[in-house]
Amino acid sequence: MRYGYFGPAGTFTEMALLRLPGVEDVERVPIASVEAALEAVRDGSVDAAVVPIENSVEGGVSATLDALSSGADLVVVHEVLVPITFVLAARAGTTLADIRGVGSHPHAWAQVRHWMGARLPEATYVPCLSTAAAAAGLAGDDTAYEAAVCAPVAAQAHGLQVLAEDIGDNRSAVTRFVLVARPGRLPEPTGADKTSVVLFQADDHPGGLLELLEQFAARGINLTRLESRPTGDALGRYCFSIDFEGHVNDERVGETLMGLRRVCADVRFLGSYPRADGAVVEVRPGTRDTDFTAARAWLRGLRNG
Amino acid sequence: MRYGYFGPAGTFTEMALLRLPGVEDVERVPIASVEAALEAVRDGSVDAAVVPIENSVEGGVSATLDALSSGADLVVVHEVLVPITFVLAARAGTTLADIRGVGSHPHAWAQVRHWMGARLPEATYVPCLSTAAAAAGLAGDDTAYEAAVCAPVAAQAHGLQVLAEDIGDNRSAVTRFVLVARPGRLPEPTGADKTSVVLFQADDHPGGLLELLEQFAARGINLTRLESRPTGDALGRYCFSIDFEGHVNDERVGETLMGLRRVCADVRFLGSYPRADGAVVEVRPGTRDTDFTAARAWLRGLRNG
Amino acid sequence: MRYGYFGPAGTFTEMALLRLPGVEDVERVPIASVEAALEAVRDGSVDAAVVPIENSVEGGVSATLDALSSGADLVVVHEVLVPITFVLAARAGTTLADIRGVGSHPHAWAQVRHWMGARLPEATYVPCLSTAAAAAGLAGDDTAYEAAVCAPVAAQAHGLQVLAEDIGDNRSAVTRFVLVARPGRLPEPTGADKTSVVLFQADDHPGGLLELLEQFAARGINLTRLESRPTGDALGRYCFSIDFEGHVNDERVGETLMGLRRVCADVRFLGSYPRADGAVVEVRPGTRDTDFTAARAWLRGLRNG
Amino acid sequence: MRYGYFGPAGTFTEMALLRLPGVEDVERVPIASVEAALEAVRDGSVDAAVVPIENSVEGGVSATLDALSSGADLVVVHEVLVPITFVLAARAGTTLADIRGVGSHPHAWAQVRHWMGARLPEATYVPCLSTAAAAAGLAGDDTAYEAAVCAPVAAQAHGLQVLAEDIGDNRSAVTRFVLVARPGRLPEPTGADKTSVVLFQADDHPGGLLELLEQFAARGINLTRLESRPTGDALGRYCFSIDFEGHVNDERVGETLMGLRRVCADVRFLGSYPRADGAVVEVRPGTRDTDFTAARAWLRGLRNG
Repeated sequence: MRYGYFGPAGTFTEMALLRLPGVEDVERVPIASVEAALEAVRDGSVDAAVVPIENSVEGGVSATLDALSSGADLVVVHEVLVPITFVLAARAGTTLADIRGVGSHPHAWAQVRHWMGARLPEATYVPCLSTAAAAAGLAGDDTAYEAAVCAPVAAQAHGLQVLAEDIGDNRSAVTRFVLVARPGRLPEPTGADKTSVVLFQADDHPGGLLELLEQFAARGINLTRLESRPTGDALGRYCFSIDFEGHVNDERVGETLMGLRRVCADVRFLGSYPRADGAVVEVRPGTRDTDFTAARAWLRGLRNG
Repeated sequence: MRYGYFGPAGTFTEMALLRLPGVEDVERVPIASVEAALEAVRDGSVDAAVVPIENSVEGGVSATLDALSSGADLVVVHEVLVPITFVLAARAGTTLADIRGVGSHPHAWAQVRHWMGARLPEATYVPCLSTAAAAAGLAGDDTAYEAAVCAPVAAQAHGLQVLAEDIGDNRSAVTRFVLVARPGRLPEPTGADKTSVVLFQADDHPGGLLELLEQFAARGINLTRLESRPTGDALGRYCFSIDFEGHVNDERVGETLMGLRRVCADVRFLGSYPRADGAVVEVRPGTRDTDFTAARAWLRGLRNG
Repeated sequence: MRYGYFGPAGTFTEMALLRLPGVEDVERVPIASVEAALEAVRDGSVDAAVVPIENSVEGGVSATLDALSSGADLVVVHEVLVPITFVLAARAGTTLADIRGVGSHPHAWAQVRHWMGARLPEATYVPCLSTAAAAAGLAGDDTAYEAAVCAPVAAQAHGLQVLAEDIGDNRSAVTRFVLVARPGRLPEPTGADKTSVVLFQADDHPGGLLELLEQFAARGINLTRLESRPTGDALGRYCFSIDFEGHVNDERVGETLMGLRRVCADVRFLGSYPRADGAVVEVRPGTRDTDFTAARAWLRGLRNG
Repeated sequence: MRYGYFGPAGTFTEMALLRLPGVEDVERVPIASVEAALEAVRDGSVDAAVVPIENSVEGGVSATLDALSSGADLVVVHEVLVPITFVLAARAGTTLADIRGVGSHPHAWAQVRHWMGARLPEATYVPCLSTAAAAAGLAGDDTAYEAAVCAPVAAQAHGLQVLAEDIGDNRSAVTRFVLVARPGRLPEPTGADKTSVVLFQADDHPGGLLELLEQFAARGINLTRLESRPTGDALGRYCFSIDFEGHVNDERVGETLMGLRRVCADVRFLGSYPRADGAVVEVRPGTRDTDFTAARAWLRGLRNG
């Protein structure tokens, strides 16, 4: 088995991949962008790929959401949560006093602003394309900075010295990663599942989102994430990327999906998979599979007189 | 075939029965009360019964709504609309100037108040148990009134003279009657059908009715009548008697009924039958049978990967 | 002070009147119909009137609901709950074995059916215009019945003997009565108040009722009674008679009433008054008067920049 | 007057600034990041700042949304739409055949993929921190690329030759920019206004978003943009960034804002301002200012009896 991931080595994404079950027998393939990683799944050059989808500080990862929303169908088959911790790393022998410039990705820089203001208020920020790239730069001779803000694994990968650990402003920051594959056999329901979809509205009338949410409410289903993404057609035209509790094999989820399919211009199904946090779904009264089965039998009786 | 009806002869209910298709081959059985008429259907002493269910001036007929809501299941199989016109009837030879008292049922009296105020302002009202009974009384010798407000058919049945026609304040008054039978073969869908149910809420929480109405809204179904009726348990405990557009065999109606069944303590199905006014249901986009069939095929594909 | 009531003496309505505070100084005026009683308030011949509005077994009292919905404005200023208990009453010396016919109002008869089936299965039912009238008949010589089903107070008023007490099928039956006056000073808010309105929809579009209910939901207000009543224009045209928790002086009630006024063709206000059961309203978070005041101050700040 | 903008010179943001009324008398101050530009408004070093807020292809600009959602209050006072057109620019004398590498920002690169695949399929992509930086690089000697994908204005600013115009895959791409100031006098209502807010839910219960949307629906208000953004507390905790039609001085907008304020943990008001597209708001029946004024007068009458 070959799994792609949004690389290079030393990123939080690789850390997510390493937490997957059975990963010891999997060949790991770093891929330069989320789009390319998902394209590699589509064209069969890898069996699946790990990409970030949501960060507790930065929000949904647009590149992932958009790449899943268009092109050939893909489905999420697993999710992994990785706590995000930043270190300040430098070449061996460097001290805090030596540091005049600090390299990192803008998102990471935004998340360590308080620590920097308190400890290195004079340091200049040097933007880099990723935190791993900032660390890699220090392995070469010539950089405009003396330290990098990066993941612990990146510091280690490039033989850097860690000057300070866990310097993020938000200690509980976490990123959600997903393993994405071509459609095929779905993961079995576990009772603690999520389902992901993208909904395209039939038209952009006022109250349209309210109507979509009522399809969920009528079957007692909780949303865990809702993000609007532009469809690209025009300003103000959005689709909705939604995660909700339950598995496509659940009756209440099936009926909700059919309801959405009927009222939307398009519904893209992005998979049903076990929640990384293992939280068991609280099924509301009247929405268990047995309630649906009983109601169907009753209706059949009515129709037969 | 024997059809019961809320009698005596000469009521608007008998007029409704006479408008049913095939009535020439039917034996007509007057029955003294709505409850008794429906009980006669249940115990098999008649094949079906005609009862009033809704009047455009007086509203739902409580006796009918309540008798349908409890006891063994019955279903509506036909509906008939009868314009309600009142006449002033008296013994032959009577003139307006002779009239000092007028007999009628209180509901009927309420509907001719303007005419009476203008033409017989001095007349005394004598309450009677039905408009037909008021007319029948004039056939005997000894009444406390010289004229009756009744249906044209009742005046005719008792050989009375009509002193004034169509004296109702509301010229467009109409009553809806239904033919009720034991459950059996349902009337075929015609595209212009109604379905009747009684909904008993699982508990009496605020917003409960809103939730029930959302089950209809989620499948694009219009209500044509909603009445609350006490369940008799306690003040403020109500069930809802509802008519809506569509036939139980329609996919959208079936899913709505199943949804109601899941969230209600009880749902009593009172039949699907052609509308008397023949108004064809406007089916909203995404709620045709073909939309449901397509959505179900799509869901099956998702579940199979 | 003169209070009218739906009489004659000996009815449950008079019992309700006798429970009003300060009734010892009030002149009691029996009036033959609900409509006439309310008309007497309008024309000033009485200061207020007591009428039944809702029964736990029979539901809303149409005559009262309709008479309040049209004509000059009236408001409810007090409500009284009266447990409904029926007795079997007869002339002194009568025994159960003597009884071949029983007189009563049809509604009362419907509520004692079980007792009659068990104890007097052979008795013939004789319909009367009220339970008090049935009792009064026994005071005369010539009746087609030997016993009456009536209120205890009616048996007492006519010197009848009570053969059986509390013979109703539903021992917890209760009727709600209201004291109705011309608009004037409103009863003070008590924290356990109700408000009554009649809503006329602007047009009869599908989902119209849902929209009205959302006006209540958006301000966290619970309904305690909802009944549809025909407007009389045409079959299927209804207005809604609604009671809800709170007093017109409450901010959340005021904003709800204004919202209804804006979206309805008409809103008829029928008063705010203390609940007879004294149940204190549970005000939801964010809907206390102080929440409204704070929000208004905040908005004023925004508008002033 | 000094206006900051997300610079350097030559960006689409500067183009937006140049379209503001009265810009000829304004000093333009390029600022390296959105956060810094808004901070400069807060600390008074500029009077206002222009920042991008929404792109028809890429969606909401997270940096702007987040910087407006926290810190001292700021308000939007103007909006500008700028069509996004990309050119391929190079040093004078370069031809398509000379190009082996192309520099640009990843977002821009994503928007010209089709053109590149058709005309320069062999070119290597070199990521840069902005499109303007890619153009600026070509002004120096030593770059890893021979051409840049950038705005026409950037090519011009750096004396580059345009090899191809309007090479974006989506010809109707447009970005919305806003002029942000400290709270003060609000722009006057024009009848074609928008209002922006950030809503923080009181708790994260299921159906919470539905309740917020119902506050808008109850006053007939249309949303034009809804985006969820993480609050940063935990995965799955979101606030909602919303634009809707109308001005805070409109009665219906005022009541909606108060309703949101009452049910939300916090509401951040981000201003009311004229729509760039000039689209006049269609006010629904019953939600004009005069409807509110009439309803308020009516309520006052009820309260005074």
